[in-house]
Amino acid sequence: MVVGTGGMARLLARCLRGRAHVAIASRRPSEARRLARRLGAEWASVEEAGRFDFVVLTAPPDRLEEAASRVAGHLRPGSIVMDVSSVKRGVVERVSRALPSHVAYVSLHPLFGPSTRRVEGRVVVVVPVRGEWAVEPVVELMRGMGLRVVVSSADEHDMAMAAVQVAHHLSYLAYAVTLASSLSPELVERYATRSLCSTLSALRRLYRGLRVVREIQELNAYGGLIKVRLLENLRELARGGEGAWRRVEEALRLLASVRPQASGRAKASASRRPQRTPTSASP
Amino acid sequence: MVVGTGGMARLLARCLRGRAHVAIASRRPSEARRLARRLGAEWASVEEAGRFDFVVLTAPPDRLEEAASRVAGHLRPGSIVMDVSSVKRGVVERVSRALPSHVAYVSLHPLFGPSTRRVEGRVVVVVPVRGEWAVEPVVELMRGMGLRVVVSSADEHDMAMAAVQVAHHLSYLAYAVTLASSLSPELVERYATRSLCSTLSALRRLYRGLRVVREIQELNAYGGLIKVRLLENLRELARGGEGAWRRVEEALRLLASVRPQASGRAKASASRRPQRTPTSASP
Repeated sequence: MVVGTGGMARLLARCLRGRAHVAIASRRPSEARRLARRLGAEWASVEEAGRFDFVVLTAPPDRLEEAASRVAGHLRPGSIVMDVSSVKRGVVERVSRALPSHVAYVSLHPLFGPSTRRVEGRVVVVVPVRGEWAVEPVVELMRGMGLRVVVSSADEHDMAMAAVQVAHHLSYLAYAVTLASSLSPELVERYATRSLCSTLSALRRLYRGLRVVREIQELNAYGGLIKVRLLENLRELARGGEGAWRRVEEALRLLASVRPQASGRAKASASRRPQRTPTSASP
Repeated sequence: MVVGTGGMARLLARCLRGRAHVAIASRRPSEARRLARRLGAEWASVEEAGRFDFVVLTAPPDRLEEAASRVAGHLRPGSIVMDVSSVKRGVVERVSRALPSHVAYVSLHPLFGPSTRRVEGRVVVVVPVRGEWAVEPVVELMRGMGLRVVVSSADEHDMAMAAVQVAHHLSYLAYAVTLASSLSPELVERYATRSLCSTLSALRRLYRGLRVVREIQELNAYGGLIKVRLLENLRELARGGEGAWRRVEEALRLLASVRPQASGRAKASASRRPQRTPTSASP
């Protein structure tokens, strides 16, 4: 059962259809019915949650606890509850408390937006919160959708996402505000380099997902820390000098060696154990 | 005549070959000879500059005046001197003074790197410094290579490039240093989103052109100003709050409407007159 009718609910229901018996539920039954009809899926009321092996809550992090409370009384023992929250620490604990002890809870973070057309090869982070036995069936379900699965802890997830999303988005957004307040759209068009064109595409993607971008900025447990670090680095580089340029060169050399697999090919490897997270990559 | 044997000299010589009689010259004749042989072009000594209609100096901005002085005594009246400097103000004045009054001087900024394979549709900024009559033949030459020509002033060029290059590169570099010092390469690979993958590609391009990136950071006349602005914007957004998010949304909406032409299609329009540069895009 997929609870919700937003973009991620639609995407999940579409990808799961054919692999599992999918039902859409929502606080607003008429919307659930409409979406279910469009997708050729069943619709169900939240009270029917006990009929399903998997219950996916798609509410945003600030309304997830409430969504969990709403289904809590209707879940059957041994079912698996999931969510798709983009932040974990501070959220999964509260959701976990809202759920009855006889269900498992596995928190997901799909590292792609709801408008993604082909999810094959994309990454989903799987954070087991309660019920170790539930991890395998969840991983199987995700792999069945063609996703690359990364099993992690809430803490490692948030630390990684502070760097991969919080600082990343923030530096794009600060640049966007700077560019828009310095140059008219006509001059941006006139002088755009190829590299600016791909930055503008990235900014259009951030604009489309701005609600989630803001949510991650505000709720990630390591957000404050990484923002201070980004600000300090920017200040140092703006000042310039040999030391700053040496740091730049080292960072670029290190990152040039990174070859992520997120760009398409499906890979069916999931390391079960969260790795230790070094706080610094320098020796 | 192309003076120099670096990446941009090679690219220009390769693109001009077939359209014009091309000779390579250099302070190091053996290198010029080797490059000329590889390209099937002529080689010449700097002293032969007087044989050519166009003389392109490819030295970086901090050695451009010196390069100009070296050819100055050998130029014939009515020839056109060009350079490919990525910054204009503070550079073109000195180069201009080093050249004899009987030649024209048109400064170029190709908005693409020396490793570009197909230059068709890419942008070259043309900044007339001395000899209005020389602009037309230069624009013709550039269009003949398939380039999109933007005629500008040194001041408009530097102001635009402060936003399109200085702040742009700086925000990427500050993020690179932050990412590399927060996450091991293994974790970056593990958690990379599609969006991070394209940022990593952008960082690899900056790494390849780091000498020019640094030169632009240090020499652009409006660099100091835009860096302060970027830093302030980052600080404000890191703090968050409704006002900050409203500014972000406005900027993203404005930039989403920009559709630059730099991404491939050759367009043969060049506005002759530099536009006035508004310092703010907000109403």
